[in-house]
Amino acid sequence: MIRIRTIKEALESKELEPESELELFSRNLDLSAVIPGVKETIAGVKKRGDAALLEYTEKFDRVRLKDKAIEVELEEIEAAKMSVDDDTFRSIEASATAIRNFHYRQKRRGAWLEEFSPGVFLGEKYVPFDVVGAYVPKGYFSSALMCVIPAKIAKVREIVVCTPPGKDGHADQVTLVAADLAGATRIFKIGGAQAIAALAFGTETVPRVQKVVGPGNIYVTAAKIALREEGIEIDFPAGPSEVLIIADETANPEFIAADMLAQAEHGESSQAVLLTDSERIAADVEREILATADGKRLKAKGEGNDEDISQLQSQYQHQHWILTGASIDECIEFANKYAPEHLEIIVRSPLEVLKSIKNAGSVFIGNYSPVAAGDYATGANHVLPTAGYAKLFSGLDVDHFMHRITLQWLDKEGLRQIKNVVVRSCKVEGMEAHARSVEKRFLHESQERQQ
Amino acid sequence: MIRIRTIKEALESKELEPESELELFSRNLDLSAVIPGVKETIAGVKKRGDAALLEYTEKFDRVRLKDKAIEVELEEIEAAKMSVDDDTFRSIEASATAIRNFHYRQKRRGAWLEEFSPGVFLGEKYVPFDVVGAYVPKGYFSSALMCVIPAKIAKVREIVVCTPPGKDGHADQVTLVAADLAGATRIFKIGGAQAIAALAFGTETVPRVQKVVGPGNIYVTAAKIALREEGIEIDFPAGPSEVLIIADETANPEFIAADMLAQAEHGESSQAVLLTDSERIAADVEREILATADGKRLKAKGEGNDEDISQLQSQYQHQHWILTGASIDECIEFANKYAPEHLEIIVRSPLEVLKSIKNAGSVFIGNYSPVAAGDYATGANHVLPTAGYAKLFSGLDVDHFMHRITLQWLDKEGLRQIKNVVVRSCKVEGMEAHARSVEKRFLHESQERQQ
Repeated sequence: MIRIRTIKEALESKELEPESELELFSRNLDLSAVIPGVKETIAGVKKRGDAALLEYTEKFDRVRLKDKAIEVELEEIEAAKMSVDDDTFRSIEASATAIRNFHYRQKRRGAWLEEFSPGVFLGEKYVPFDVVGAYVPKGYFSSALMCVIPAKIAKVREIVVCTPPGKDGHADQVTLVAADLAGATRIFKIGGAQAIAALAFGTETVPRVQKVVGPGNIYVTAAKIALREEGIEIDFPAGPSEVLIIADETANPEFIAADMLAQAEHGESSQAVLLTDSERIAADVEREILATADGKRLKAKGEGNDEDISQLQSQYQHQHWILTGASIDECIEFANKYAPEHLEIIVRSPLEVLKSIKNAGSVFIGNYSPVAAGDYATGANHVLPTAGYAKLFSGLDVDHFMHRITLQWLDKEGLRQIKNVVVRSCKVEGMEAHARSVEKRFLHESQERQQ
Repeated sequence: MIRIRTIKEALESKELEPESELELFSRNLDLSAVIPGVKETIAGVKKRGDAALLEYTEKFDRVRLKDKAIEVELEEIEAAKMSVDDDTFRSIEASATAIRNFHYRQKRRGAWLEEFSPGVFLGEKYVPFDVVGAYVPKGYFSSALMCVIPAKIAKVREIVVCTPPGKDGHADQVTLVAADLAGATRIFKIGGAQAIAALAFGTETVPRVQKVVGPGNIYVTAAKIALREEGIEIDFPAGPSEVLIIADETANPEFIAADMLAQAEHGESSQAVLLTDSERIAADVEREILATADGKRLKAKGEGNDEDISQLQSQYQHQHWILTGASIDECIEFANKYAPEHLEIIVRSPLEVLKSIKNAGSVFIGNYSPVAAGDYATGANHVLPTAGYAKLFSGLDVDHFMHRITLQWLDKEGLRQIKNVVVRSCKVEGMEAHARSVEKRFLHESQERQQ
């Protein structure tokens, strides 16, 4: 379904107010229905460990793991490497290289110490987490690259991947190859909320981790949120994928329609929203999306086979919104309120628009930056906050796998310089022993002077 | 009470195992007793707004706010400025300047865009949060500086401070001056869990914020953790303050004892732990701490009046641990496991030790870097993770008030270069429409070539 409104109508309509938590702004991210079941799964894994993992895998993934082997063996990884075709292997390598390049650039390095005033040295030291977990949805090898590579660059010692088994009891082979290439140290054939719980508490075979990252379905997200209460950190809650496009008359409506349809491929909860100040673009994009339902025309143009077309026909039923605004400024205001995971800016002066963008996961600029390029191959991370969380969170990056220690090193003259400020402050706050701990360092000296 | 053990005994003793969540590692951070009450307070504020705030302030702070004025008026701030003495004012200014200098150095700036491969530009843009809240415990003006200054440097638009009223219905004057000087935009006379709830949900007068930072007592911490479930972000959970000191024979035992006693000033849940490879240091520090109980000796040395001494006598009853190790390496291992908020390293080669430190909030190096100096005047932040959370979190800084948007800008040649990798990846993951969104950009071209 394509819904067409003006931005003003959309904002004024009760249906769209964020307070009413209706569709457009709420993104259908209502976890309440799944939380009781997820909590039960979590409790089961916490209590019964591996036995619960095997049981839930049989129940939810409908597969009995051979020899009860939860962990992927080295032999399975080697077999996967041999069975993956060369083109795919090279493609994984190319993506991994691009991801490495971008994330190396992001990384804050080592330690620094600088003299801020005479004798007062301050600094920082960055430290990687020791053990982290990455959740990779079944068959999404690209998410294995996106989660594991930043952890590797941060120098995390143990990088544990969980990914659901297929009906044959094996993990997806391309995912195994990608996870291994990226630097995963252990891989488990476990999915869903049970995987997140296993990482959070540890089991007989799965190690307990400090942080769980990665995209996942509604069960995975609910489990991640529930486990924050248990002292396990997560990257951020992730809901269905979404794209918002700001376009003016310089945009190519065919490209926009293609990107909106691609978004719908993520499932029926995924939203694709076009904001434009051009009635022509709005009309052309609508026509283009509708045209994909017209199999004959598509076929005549040689753009797809029967299967492709029937898939597209179902996709265009998804949540597509076309909102027209009086100006690009109005589009920007709406975009900041919506805080999209993916934001495409296809306008004459994109950097002007970018200046005013406050909330988005990743921004794609111009007619030749489709979201799909960033999903796989530009090198930027595709694990991004959805459902409006881009107001609060940044996408996955090296920082997620490190923490910072501040450093303070004063010599006697440095401490002497700030002594009066410290002592005065201590007295104001009633911290006498704090004051004494500083004065103590100069006590013998003042006694010497008195003599 | 001073407890003296070897590190080995401490680690081997069941009493100290982290699993048993006993004293030394658990830091007495058990919130379960206060959570039901805190949840009730939160529900009250969510439902009844300002009316609940006034009611809880009367109940918990035992004061009826004059004219039901929850917000601090400009006149009150001006009056506070006039009543604070010059020395204190200058002291606040000096602290603020040092804090600004360090946090400016930390800040990641603006936006960048670089060409990673021909035609593929990637970058980042940093954006401040729009509205944040800072909790400042009653009378701790220094925490107002530590919370507000980084937010100001991040360029947060609205910085809302909550601090409890005194018995006279006014907020602490020095705190008002510090918050104002630091750049707070609004200040409210509300404390405890009710303040955190007000910031999380907003009330008729208190604005709703995106993130709540700052130290607080057990009620404040419990409220912060509970409210994460409501989509409000927090800096990190904070429990009682603590110090761990690694010292060898080059350390001055008098200074160590003074720092351990200062730590105890934070309350009876605060821990001070000395780790040393020197039996002599262990014995000297113990003697020095015990000597503070000997009023006559202290007085003879001119180190304090009667009141000071009686206060010290009660402080030395607190949780002091002296643990001796066979080597400094053993001390380091223990320290990483403990993950102290404050870590003092007073050894011959401190940078050698620092290399192996993985978990700490802030590190203080050498005989002249007491924690008290960092609490007020070096410029580093004193809002730090406690209770072992230094394994996961960094102390408060400018990053806490910003989020990052990644940028991707490809031209046609850039997209062409990675097209095959994207399309191959799409096919492997079964994302046909994603592949089509890239191929679409080159469709007319290939049709032209075919003709």
